[in-house]
Order: sequence, then structure tokens, then C-alpha cells
Amino acid sequence: MKQTITEKLIAASLAEGEMIRGQRIGILADQTLSHDLNGVMSYQAFEAMGLDKVKVDLAVHYIDHNMIQADYKNSDDHRYLQDITAKAGVICSRPGSGICHQLHLEHWARPGKTLIGGDSHTVAAGGIGMLSIGVGGFDGAVAMAGEPFYLTMPKIVNVQLIGKLPPFVSAKNIILELLRRISVHGGVGKILEYSGLGVETLNVAERSTVTNMGQETGATTSVFPSDENTRKWMRAYHREEQWVPLAADEGAVYDETIVIDLTKLEPLIAIPHQPDKVVSVREVSGTKVDQVMMGSCTNGSLQDILSVAHILGGNPIHRDVDTGLYPATRTVIRESIARGAHDKILASGVRIFEPVCGGCNGCGFAPQTNGVSLRTTPRNFLGRSGTASAQVYLVSPEVAAASALTGVITDPRDLNLPPLTYEMPEVFADDRDMFQLPSAEPEKITIRRGPNSKPIPEMPSLPDVTSGEVLVKVGDDITTDHIVPAGANYTPIRSNIPEFSKHAFKVVDETFAERAQKAGGGFIVGGSNYGQGSSREQAAMVPRYLGVKAVIAKSFARLHLANMVNWGLFPLMFIDAKDYDKIGQGDYLAMDTDRLKEGENLILRNETKKMDIIVASPLCQADLDAVKAGGRINQVKDRQR
Amino acid sequence: MKQTITEKLIAASLAEGEMIRGQRIGILADQTLSHDLNGVMSYQAFEAMGLDKVKVDLAVHYIDHNMIQADYKNSDDHRYLQDITAKAGVICSRPGSGICHQLHLEHWARPGKTLIGGDSHTVAAGGIGMLSIGVGGFDGAVAMAGEPFYLTMPKIVNVQLIGKLPPFVSAKNIILELLRRISVHGGVGKILEYSGLGVETLNVAERSTVTNMGQETGATTSVFPSDENTRKWMRAYHREEQWVPLAADEGAVYDETIVIDLTKLEPLIAIPHQPDKVVSVREVSGTKVDQVMMGSCTNGSLQDILSVAHILGGNPIHRDVDTGLYPATRTVIRESIARGAHDKILASGVRIFEPVCGGCNGCGFAPQTNGVSLRTTPRNFLGRSGTASAQVYLVSPEVAAASALTGVITDPRDLNLPPLTYEMPEVFADDRDMFQLPSAEPEKITIRRGPNSKPIPEMPSLPDVTSGEVLVKVGDDITTDHIVPAGANYTPIRSNIPEFSKHAFKVVDETFAERAQKAGGGFIVGGSNYGQGSSREQAAMVPRYLGVKAVIAKSFARLHLANMVNWGLFPLMFIDAKDYDKIGQGDYLAMDTDRLKEGENLILRNETKKMDIIVASPLCQADLDAVKAGGRINQVKDRQR
Repeated sequence: MKQTITEKLIAASLAEGEMIRGQRIGILADQTLSHDLNGVMSYQAFEAMGLDKVKVDLAVHYIDHNMIQADYKNSDDHRYLQDITAKAGVICSRPGSGICHQLHLEHWARPGKTLIGGDSHTVAAGGIGMLSIGVGGFDGAVAMAGEPFYLTMPKIVNVQLIGKLPPFVSAKNIILELLRRISVHGGVGKILEYSGLGVETLNVAERSTVTNMGQETGATTSVFPSDENTRKWMRAYHREEQWVPLAADEGAVYDETIVIDLTKLEPLIAIPHQPDKVVSVREVSGTKVDQVMMGSCTNGSLQDILSVAHILGGNPIHRDVDTGLYPATRTVIRESIARGAHDKILASGVRIFEPVCGGCNGCGFAPQTNGVSLRTTPRNFLGRSGTASAQVYLVSPEVAAASALTGVITDPRDLNLPPLTYEMPEVFADDRDMFQLPSAEPEKITIRRGPNSKPIPEMPSLPDVTSGEVLVKVGDDITTDHIVPAGANYTPIRSNIPEFSKHAFKVVDETFAERAQKAGGGFIVGGSNYGQGSSREQAAMVPRYLGVKAVIAKSFARLHLANMVNWGLFPLMFIDAKDYDKIGQGDYLAMDTDRLKEGENLILRNETKKMDIIVASPLCQADLDAVKAGGRINQVKDRQR
Repeated sequence: MKQTITEKLIAASLAEGEMIRGQRIGILADQTLSHDLNGVMSYQAFEAMGLDKVKVDLAVHYIDHNMIQADYKNSDDHRYLQDITAKAGVICSRPGSGICHQLHLEHWARPGKTLIGGDSHTVAAGGIGMLSIGVGGFDGAVAMAGEPFYLTMPKIVNVQLIGKLPPFVSAKNIILELLRRISVHGGVGKILEYSGLGVETLNVAERSTVTNMGQETGATTSVFPSDENTRKWMRAYHREEQWVPLAADEGAVYDETIVIDLTKLEPLIAIPHQPDKVVSVREVSGTKVDQVMMGSCTNGSLQDILSVAHILGGNPIHRDVDTGLYPATRTVIRESIARGAHDKILASGVRIFEPVCGGCNGCGFAPQTNGVSLRTTPRNFLGRSGTASAQVYLVSPEVAAASALTGVITDPRDLNLPPLTYEMPEVFADDRDMFQLPSAEPEKITIRRGPNSKPIPEMPSLPDVTSGEVLVKVGDDITTDHIVPAGANYTPIRSNIPEFSKHAFKVVDETFAERAQKAGGGFIVGGSNYGQGSSREQAAMVPRYLGVKAVIAKSFARLHLANMVNWGLFPLMFIDAKDYDKIGQGDYLAMDTDRLKEGENLILRNETKKMDIIVASPLCQADLDAVKAGGRINQVKDRQR
């Protein structure tokens, strides 16, 4: 049978199920990726499962997110992660070496293989022809344990690129164009597979800009062929021998086709506050800019930095624009230095930070109140920058640099500069010693834990009959940020569940945590799309830790449902959405969870209002069983013993 | 009469009093320096005085301290500072250009002139032959207002340097040796004036390492002659025409002489937790190291960076040592790049941050719990790093680099490397465009203020009779950190007095702020050395804002006394220290402040215990009058109107 690239990749890693669209399949990772923000929880789960060694070909850990170190907490986490990775057989990139997604592309990602990573932008590795899927911290640990990752066999979309990008219209505009067309929901349940002659005009870094931000379409992942450009990339990073070609068979069948003519693209911009609110730069040019942030995993490649240097040319940036740059990796910095780009950028007055995630997710470089911030990052969600009132726009490095110079949103073509011709280096500086290899004597390693490090609380299996008070009733579109707070003030305690729990629902109700603890748990009632937003599993763990048994809502966000299954919290949906009105905060509810079966209704008794309410769970039986066991964590624990 | 350098400098700026040791004198600043951490308060005070233009020859503002920007607060402060400096006639260094003390040396400091700066390490400028004094934020504003700064005419110490530093023993060891000899109290009431043939062997950057950290001796300031090396420095920074020679007259009289033979110095180290706990590196070599922090205002010069690169040589640092570098300025970075040093340091795995104060005062790069951290910074006070349990050692860049390589405290001479010969560049990169000149149309500037920006509360003059409750009774050695908390979590609200007040005495008593507010103010009772530590004026402002009228203690720290005068809070001392026991927390006290006169006793009535207690103020009459007026701020306001 003729196969797409996606099918070839999935076939190679398939452990359970069949590759039939819509069916549940289990795949095994060849490689795993973790980082310090989500990784602490992953490794704690790994320890809680009783494991001592990873069971994948290659596991790599990165320290790039929680880098502020305002006190001991982040520093202690780094040390814990360096200890446990050395002991568990995981390669660890030392702090400050670079951003995980780009480092993985430089040194480890391999065409034809499968990568499971505890970060949504893991999908960047699709640029090298790898099946790469981003998951939550717990699922990352499960992958390291050598257990399958389950997903629904996605549809496969053929994204045909034709033509060639014009000068000052870089790869970022391809993915902005795609988002403009298919929106932030357009990729849900799909894998975006790139093809066409336009592919040959893009190097691996450019391709990964596209796959990285492909995440914002909601797609499971994105993937490019592996070709001569891929081979060149791997040769330049001292590992040509790992290269294999990968392409779709002639006549392979796709569910859908999208054609993008690169020649016709122009500079695009996503206006606040969604990555798919894309318009042409010309439509908003002239808007006054307060901050410009360049770099990040999406646009921190050498090519991006050289392009910025070319546009800035050492000329002073506008006095009203605070401009920063997060290069992607140490190697990018060294090559940029060697080419004079760094000096030019510094001479222009740009702040060059160490190669970390930094401001992208609000860990530093937050904009001013109401500040207009142009960013080359993948996301402009409300408040993600660390400043709730900021107006964040997503742009290419070229638009960012041009606007930093002029002080207003600017189409770089209007500067009338000669185009830059980028030739990827034949060979990049050899920085492989940034990786700390696992210990040869793991038994001799004592893992050091700081006072902020708390083991994952034991979560026993759930009782058949459960009852309690409605601790909080919330409306529609409650995000994981509402359930547990985001931002640099909270990221250091994110893996300390007892401490983090004190801040549950803070945004909505300051008294929630105290009341939940006093009541010994209870229920949460929500509206539609409960749990939307980040993959943060603490939004399930924390309520569970506080004794919450079930969340009854009109509907749930997909990723949050998975986290509820992992950590043992029942999701229940109103059969009649109007029944939402039949429960008030403080009402006393009771239900027999033993009767909770896939596809069956359940009676929820409101003792306070003396009413019965019909609910059902959106989970399949396997997942319901997992919740009853107290979460998949307990199931995996049992299996691994 | 034969004059010392110090006397020549003071004579040139003397506005009040006579240059007789121990007499109160007032000096006028030719230049002022401010930065974003203390500067917000300075400029708010400046506004509160009703001023719109600075009244000094040159005022320069720097943005280098509060650079984390975890949310809008720091970013808003930067914008406020850029606006108000543009309006008030102050030159502003844009964020990320470098650390104030080094930038000032590079571009503005002038031999023969006087600098008043709102930061204790302002004294670094003594390296160029300038009289440079560090003050609190309010005194910084007073200097900008063209008012005299008052001090007691200090004694003058002749520090004679003879010989020449051996290889791998750099300038840092001169000041460590001095601290070893005279301790952190040895400079109190004195100015350290350098002389001798050894001076000629030191360039301006090396001299400023010595004057910068001279602050830790308690000295008013330190000063070097201005000679051909000074001229070379100024020429290299494109301003040779500003150079003037400056030397002590033959036969000038000093109060004291200290001789240091540079030839005999060896690598030194200050062990936790005071800069004067100095031993030779050999005595503690082999101690395991967790973190190394290089750079800062004390050791972030080009010479320091090149020396680090020479020792590291691109070899990987030890896997257990997290190593970071804060170069002093953008120009240092550019010159380091041009000489290949940056590449070598990066290749070794060192994290290179933007040129800011950063980890030096706990704004990032905090060590691990109980972590041993070697730092080239000037201070190793307990907790200053951001991690209370950390063990911070102060060292030269050479010891830092050698220890980063080996993983243990290491004498760099033991690495058997060839010595590095440093030749200062004939000319440094011209980065003068990092400075934003004041606006030509200041009336057109609208100052933008974020929601965290609150004007300084009005503090009316004090009533004659005052009474109230003892809100808190504390013991000896209460620091400004006890009174108002330090650290990156609080620095962003330090100039928002209503908000910051909520955290008063948090370390000692969580309920203080609430009780003080409820009681409408009252009294604080303390032991000896009340208010020691940083120059933080908020330690006086916050109690005053909460309605505290007086602090009754056994003794006060010098800088805190000045802040009490500036912000209108009576310091009272027990005539009999044992009377401390006659007052309990919650007692009701009354006194007639009208009877409070310089050198006279006052009866304090303890209504609760029905006892009279004899107290007196350590202030002179002028300062007592200032307190009665509600603080010097009100006096200056009146004068400026």
C-alpha cells in the first residue's frame, strides 16, 4: 500500500491498534525529551512508579525554562534534575546550553524515529522528518517507562508548498499563513504533512519554525520529508551517519490537501490575542511599539539571528522600544559571533539574553502595562507574556527587527535594504560537550532535593460511593490558569503539590483551597470547555490533592480530560446543559461511581435541593477504570512493579 | 598648605563648613548617578519636591538592577524612569547597556569632580580620581536638586601601594588584603587615598575594582590619583580632553598610612558571610563548589573577562558547577567578542547574561540550598544571593575561573598556565549612542506611570505631644531586611509605599502592618544597632507611613539614622540600656517632643507600667528640626518652592 510519511512513521512505532482513522492506537517512543519546568513532575512520577532506569533508546533532558533563579527553588530543581537524569540513564543538557527544541534538532532528532516530549512544542522535531508529539509531564514519564502513548489515529493533511519565499518573507510567514487559513482549531485530530517543490527551498531550521508553530493549529504534529537538506543539516552537526531519507510514496492518500504558494506570501502578523488572528503587516503598520522580543524556539536559529543583524546593521534601535533577543542555542550564539552578527546586534542596543525560553512564557522580559510587544515566539495568548494588559503580536524576525528600528510596526520591505543571502554553514561549532552523559555508576549517585521538593502525594483508588459539597461553581471557558495560577511567581512551586494547592482557584475565589481542605474535598461545577489552555497537569492534580472527587461541567477541553484520567478525577457532563442551573455552590451531592460505565447515564443526587440530575462521563471504559484506580499513575505503578 | 587628593576634591565642591576633621561639611555634586532600583524613589521624591529640572552639571540615570521583568512592574518602572529623566534633563542609559558604576567610569566620570550617586558602590568612580559618594535615594534626589550633601569631614588614610601584582593575582586581591587588615569597620569615618609606585602599575579598571569594594570597609569613599593611565583610559573612551592630572602635594598630611606590597600578595578569598573574613585561597582549596558567578560592577571589566577566557581556554567547566558571567557593559562584551574571549567562555559552558547587576543582589542566579557559591562580587552577606542557606565566598576572576574548571576552590597558580599579558585597547568601541539624551522639548513629555507606581505619601510635620502603643519590641541587630523585606519578590514594589508597607516586619511578626494601621501608629522598641544593613530608606518610610512616631532603641546604625531624619521618624536612645526591659510590647507611651533638644534628656512616660523612662536623641539640632518638620523631604520642598 502507498504510504504517507506519517503512516511510515506511525507504522514504525506502532505498539497497539491499527492505523485506521479515528481508532485508538498506542505508539512507542524511540526518544523522549523533558525540560525543567514540566520535567520535575515527570521525574517525580517516574520515581513514584518505582522506576530507576529509562526504557527508551534515548532520553534527553534540558534545563531551559525556569532559569530566573530568584531564590533556591529553581536552582534546587536543576540540581535534582541533573542528579536524577545521571542516575536514570538520561542525557542532560547543562543549564544555559540552549532551548530544548532547537538543541534536540541540532544534536539528537532523527528522521524516521518517534519522539515523545513533555512540552507542546516538541513537534518542532517534525522539521527533520521525525514523528514528534508533545505530551504532559506524566505522559512523558510513561514514555520514559517504555509504555505506549495512546492517541486517536489522526487524519493526514497534505500541505503542498510551491514556489520560493521572496526576500524579507521568512519561514514564519508560512505557518502564519496556515493559521490564517485553518485557525487554531483547524489542525485538531490531524497531522500536517508537508510536500511539494517548495520544501526543497527550506533548510531544517526553517522547516522547524513551521512545525514548531504548527502546534498552534491544534494538530497532533507536523512533519517534513527527510531529504538532501536534512542530510546537510545533520552533516553540519557532525552526525551525517544518522541520516535516512524519508518521503511519501507516490500516490499516497491524504484526507485533505492545502496548497501554499510561497512566492505570493507577504509579511504577516498575528494580532492580539490568538496566533490565528493573522493579517498582513501592512494592515497594522504604523502602530506604535513598546517592546520587541526576538529569538525563542520558533525563531532563534542562526539564519534568524543573521537576518536580524542584517536589518539592524548596527544602527540604534528606536529609543522607545525595549528590544531583547533570546538566541536558541549556544552554538547559534557562537556562529553568530563568528559572523559579526552578534556585534552588530549589540551595537544597535538590543539586549541579548542567555539562550533560554525566558520571556516567551512569562519568565522574564514582561512588557509594560498596556505595552505593545512584537514577538517572534509561537504564542500570544492573553497574559502569557507575564503582563495581563499587554498587546502581543506575533511576527517574523524581519518584521521584529524593522519595527525595533522605526518604533512602529513596519514591513521590512519598506526599509529598501538589499536582500540577505543565507548559506547554512558546512559545519557548525562542535558543542557536544554541553551534554552531560548518564553516570557509569548510577548506584553511587545520591539524589539531592531542596526543601521545595515534595514527592507526589499518594492518591489512593476512589471509593464507589462518593458525596460532598460543591466547593466552587464556575462559568464557561475556565482555563488551567484559573484552576492553578501561571507566571514566574508560581512556576518554581509547580511541582510542590501541597504548596501549589494553596493557590488553587486563586483567580476566581481566594477561599477555595482553605474551604476544600476543611470540607475534606467535594465537587467542582463548571460550564463549557472546562480546563482549556495549557497542558498543565497540576490543574487536575491539585483539585484531586484537595479531595475533589469529580468535576461536573457542560464540556471539557481535550488535554485536561487526559490529565484527569492520569491523576484520578472524574469528569461528568450534564446530559441536559440546563441542569447546570440546578446546582448551586455549597449544595451537597452524592453519586454511586460504581455505576459509572462508558456511554451510560448516572444519577447525581442533589441532597440540598432534593433533585436528581442526569450526568455521564465522556471517558471510554479503559479511562474510567484508570480514574477508579486513582489515576493512570497507579495503574502504571502496578504494572511496573 | 600641602593638600591630599581628598582635600583638593572636597575643597572644590565645598558649599558649607570647613575642612576640619570631625566637622560637619556640605558639598555640592558636579554629577549625580541614579539607577532603577533606588531611582524610582529618588525621582518620586524629586517630583514631590516640586522640581522639574535637575540642578547639577550632569545627571546620569542607569537601568541595570531590576531587570528580571517577571511582570509589568519592572518594565513600567523603566518606562517611568525613561520618561522622567528625559523631562528632567537627565541622561538615561537604556536597559541592558551595562552596570551603572562601570558605564559611569567609561563615559562620564571625571578626575577632580564630585559625584553623588544613589547606590553605595558609586565609590567605584574613585578609580578615575573623582570624589564619589554613595547615598540613599532621597539624598540622591537632594543632590539632583542642587542642594548640598552633608557629611562629617572624614579622616584621610594614605594607602601606599608598592611593587607589582604577580601573575594570577589581580586587583581584587588588593582590596581583599585591605579588608583582611582593617575589617568591615576599618574605614568608617575615613577616606582611603591611594598612592605609591604600585598605583602606576594599575589601569583605571583595576583601580575601580579596589575603590568599588572599598565600600565594604565602611569608608566614606576611596580615591586614586589621576595620571597618565587615567588619561589613556579617557582617550580610549573618546574623551581625552576631559582629563586633568590630580595628585597629592608633596608633604601632604594624612591621618594614617597603610602599606601594601603588591609583589607579596597571593590569591585571597573572603569566606562566608562577611567581606573581611579573608584567608588565602590555599587555606580553603579543595572545598567543593556548586556555583560560580563572575563579572559584576567589581570584576566585569574587559581585563577580567579576558583573564577568565585565558584560564578557561574553552575547556569544559566541571559538571557540578553552574557557572555564570555578568560582563559589566555592552562595550566590554563587544571587545571581548572581538578578541575571541567570548567564544572561548561560551565553549567552556559558562552562561553569559546581559550586562546587569543580576545575581549580585539576589535578582537572579541564586545558588542552590546550602550551595557553595564563588563570586567575584563585592558582598557575601548572609542571604544577599537570594538563597539564605548559601555559602558565598568572594574571589578574584582568576580564582573563580580556575574553580569552575576543577569543581573545587582552586588557586589559579596551581593550573600551571602561562601568564596573561593584558594590554588595554588604545580605543574601545564607541557605544555612546546607548545614552538617551534629555528631551529638547520636555514640556511635551507626559510621564507614564503603571498601576504599581504610587506617589510618595504626604508626611505632615509632627505634633508636639505624641502618644501611642508599642507596636513591636525587637532585639539587637535588627536589619533593614527585618524592617522591610529584601529579594526579587519585593524589589518591584519597593517604591510603592502603601503596598510595600503591608510587608513591614514580616520576618519578625506577620501581624505588625495590620496592627499598626489599626492602632493609627505608635512606637517601635529595639535593641542595639537598630537598622543595620542596606541603605534602604524604606525601612524608615514604611514605619512612618504606618504612623510610627519614634523608635526607642539602645543604639542605631548610621545610615538608618540619616534615613529617619530624611523621612521624619524620631530616633530615641535609652540613657540606661537596662530601661529596655521597662517597656513591653503593647505598652502605652507618651512624650512631649517639643522638649526634645540636641544633647538634652527627655522623659518618656510608660502609662501602662506607670513608669518614667529617660531617653535622648542621638541627632543634632538641625536634624531634630528636620524630623519635626516631618522629614528633610518637607524642608527641601519648602526651600525649593
